[in-house]
Amino acid sequence: MSLIVQKYGGSSVADAESIKRVAKRIVETRKAGNEVVVAVSAMGDTTDELLDLAHEVAPIPVPREMDMLLSAGERISMALLAMAIESLGHDARSFTGSQAGMITDARHGAARIVDVTPVRLREALDEGAIVIVAGFQGFNRDTKDITTLGRGGSDTTAVALAAALDADICEIYTDVDGIFTADPRVVPKASKIDRITSEEMLELAANGAKVLYIRAVEYARRHGVTLHVRSSFNNNEGTIVYNPTEAESGTPSTTTERSEGAVEEPMIAGVATDLSEAKITVVGVPDIPGKAAQIFTIVAKTGANIDMIVQNVSAASTGLTDISFTLPKSEGQGVLTALRAEQDEVGFVGLQYDDQIGKLALVGAGMRTNAGVSAKLFTALFEAGINIEMISTSEIRISVVTRADTINDALRVVHTAFGLDAAEEAVVHAGTGR
Amino acid sequence: MSLIVQKYGGSSVADAESIKRVAKRIVETRKAGNEVVVAVSAMGDTTDELLDLAHEVAPIPVPREMDMLLSAGERISMALLAMAIESLGHDARSFTGSQAGMITDARHGAARIVDVTPVRLREALDEGAIVIVAGFQGFNRDTKDITTLGRGGSDTTAVALAAALDADICEIYTDVDGIFTADPRVVPKASKIDRITSEEMLELAANGAKVLYIRAVEYARRHGVTLHVRSSFNNNEGTIVYNPTEAESGTPSTTTERSEGAVEEPMIAGVATDLSEAKITVVGVPDIPGKAAQIFTIVAKTGANIDMIVQNVSAASTGLTDISFTLPKSEGQGVLTALRAEQDEVGFVGLQYDDQIGKLALVGAGMRTNAGVSAKLFTALFEAGINIEMISTSEIRISVVTRADTINDALRVVHTAFGLDAAEEAVVHAGTGR
Repeated sequence: MSLIVQKYGGSSVADAESIKRVAKRIVETRKAGNEVVVAVSAMGDTTDELLDLAHEVAPIPVPREMDMLLSAGERISMALLAMAIESLGHDARSFTGSQAGMITDARHGAARIVDVTPVRLREALDEGAIVIVAGFQGFNRDTKDITTLGRGGSDTTAVALAAALDADICEIYTDVDGIFTADPRVVPKASKIDRITSEEMLELAANGAKVLYIRAVEYARRHGVTLHVRSSFNNNEGTIVYNPTEAESGTPSTTTERSEGAVEEPMIAGVATDLSEAKITVVGVPDIPGKAAQIFTIVAKTGANIDMIVQNVSAASTGLTDISFTLPKSEGQGVLTALRAEQDEVGFVGLQYDDQIGKLALVGAGMRTNAGVSAKLFTALFEAGINIEMISTSEIRISVVTRADTINDALRVVHTAFGLDAAEEAVVHAGTGR
Repeated sequence: MSLIVQKYGGSSVADAESIKRVAKRIVETRKAGNEVVVAVSAMGDTTDELLDLAHEVAPIPVPREMDMLLSAGERISMALLAMAIESLGHDARSFTGSQAGMITDARHGAARIVDVTPVRLREALDEGAIVIVAGFQGFNRDTKDITTLGRGGSDTTAVALAAALDADICEIYTDVDGIFTADPRVVPKASKIDRITSEEMLELAANGAKVLYIRAVEYARRHGVTLHVRSSFNNNEGTIVYNPTEAESGTPSTTTERSEGAVEEPMIAGVATDLSEAKITVVGVPDIPGKAAQIFTIVAKTGANIDMIVQNVSAASTGLTDISFTLPKSEGQGVLTALRAEQDEVGFVGLQYDDQIGKLALVGAGMRTNAGVSAKLFTALFEAGINIEMISTSEIRISVVTRADTINDALRVVHTAFGLDAAEEAVVHAGTGR
């Protein structure tokens, strides 16, 4: 008997009809002879409605109470889902984060899982029940308070349960058919990826692909959990996210190879874009050892998440250089303030802030070893008249920064240039994740 | 320093504005130098909305999951209330039923409190925090499952907390000014009762007065908790429900005596009416010992809550008698079915079912010892042309059953006959309780 963990996002349980549909799918999985554990998000807009209420009663809601409030959302969806399954004649039991043994640290709103002790889940499974667990929420042992895991928390819940219960596979149900070579809303001919390594998936997620949260992918990679990202609106095979160092027994047998690319060529997994970042340039930094370290120590103290860093060659005449980096727009002002406070200490000339940038990342294995990839990328952008402002590369990724208003054109020309366009256009549903 | 427990019903926390208003009132109580523990219901229509959802996904929702679902309602209101208080600059912490130590049996949907262990509440109070507790919900130690207390559960939560924490008073905030001598929606000149004994309150609640739930009054009486029923929409003194055998130190000093009644006359507390009951008549019961016991043993096995019982004098010619009793309409069919199954065994002739009855109860101390009360009651009803179908009396109550469509007329004439009419009309808000 296989143990399957399934995660259903808010758009998959948005109303009573959706919940009944999901209940049927879960029962089918059980009937096929599997043990089933389900992590579920709050229904549709519940979280946004609760957030609105919170801000109506308090300008800055206290984090402990915010977590207590938001955790009610999954309580509603999981109880309804369990009822719906019971009414189909199968035993189902719902568990809150704390009942499921989802132990976290005490960081309200962004708690990290420190332990998973699914004793009650194992008992319920042994009694033949389908187990429904509230996604997104946990429990701190010291404060005895309810915590939430932050954005994408339900994905993380599912992966953590899959790891703790040694599940055969973790299915992430969403409103799209899987991971695509590019955002199908921008590139209608984006094609679904059948299989992708967790490393490539990490790069795509970190560079703006929103179907899977980077944190859940990291957790899956670290604990050797195989993911299957698929639609809750049909029975199509989705995208398998696997760990290449592992035995692949847990993955479905009906996988297809990526369509393009001969043996010697790099395997392009996909292209992601991201408009959520801003660029800060520290202008006129003395080109002497230790200055970059000094700057990024100041930045790190603000807790900001730095993405790309580029340092230009210094002009010999002045002995000064510029250092640019990108970071989420929401963290921009905090970093600017921190840097300004230390301007004399560091000795730079000034700061520039630019929140009109777009980032495009091309992800695939063996990229750096093939210079032709960069050349093809830069040529495609050049021919489309798109200016490149920053470049950064990793073993499996090339990222470029352009003007924000050119990013969708950039995505389309790059997608075409690398032969990723599918014959048919993808079907897209709207939706949000939690 | 006094410890005050306050309970706010769903209509008092129906939206963000109401929650902010309640938060201010709680802070005022704290500022006046009191420790404050608050039991709160779900916001306005939340419970009904959750019930609707449950019935959309499952024809007969499983009780365990129903409790999990409904308990989300208080989680939302209590977290919002705590946030609102924090934003006024006071420390507030919300606790679920299980966190508050509200231990119940495992009867989902109608759990009974078996123990209250408010360790975390006491700790929070000692740290100077205002404590907010989810009304209506508890926790079973054996199954480790969440339970709910059933209708009026939040009142019971408040009273149980007041008893366990040895509170000085338990304030029940509602959308009316207190307990009235009759329902102000029917009798506009109903007057507010300033003080009433818990026994009288029990009779009023049991006979249809809906402001306080009988179960909460019973709990308060058994544990010596003084209640103050008052409006959350103004600062008027409400109604004190006290236990006459107790020292009355916990009650406010500004109480007034009931306005009418000389020393020798019975003290009429109020008049309540109830349209929720039906009457079953067992026709042609052999008038031999043990038959009534046999019938009510059958009835008891259905779990029905019998209210009034009347046995007519048997007709000498037949040796047969009729036994009538009233019970909630919702329990009527079950009892009829049970009795029909045993008809041959008991030997009665037939069954009559009547759900068009109304019940009126006149409540006050020392009633039975004063024959004039019954006479005045019956005369008032006779003069209004209202027929009396059943009569039942207790030490502090006289109840009569009439046709349902005459019950409001009955209430008005009785209220006037006993001199309960106030000079001015009461102000009434609409609302529901949980």
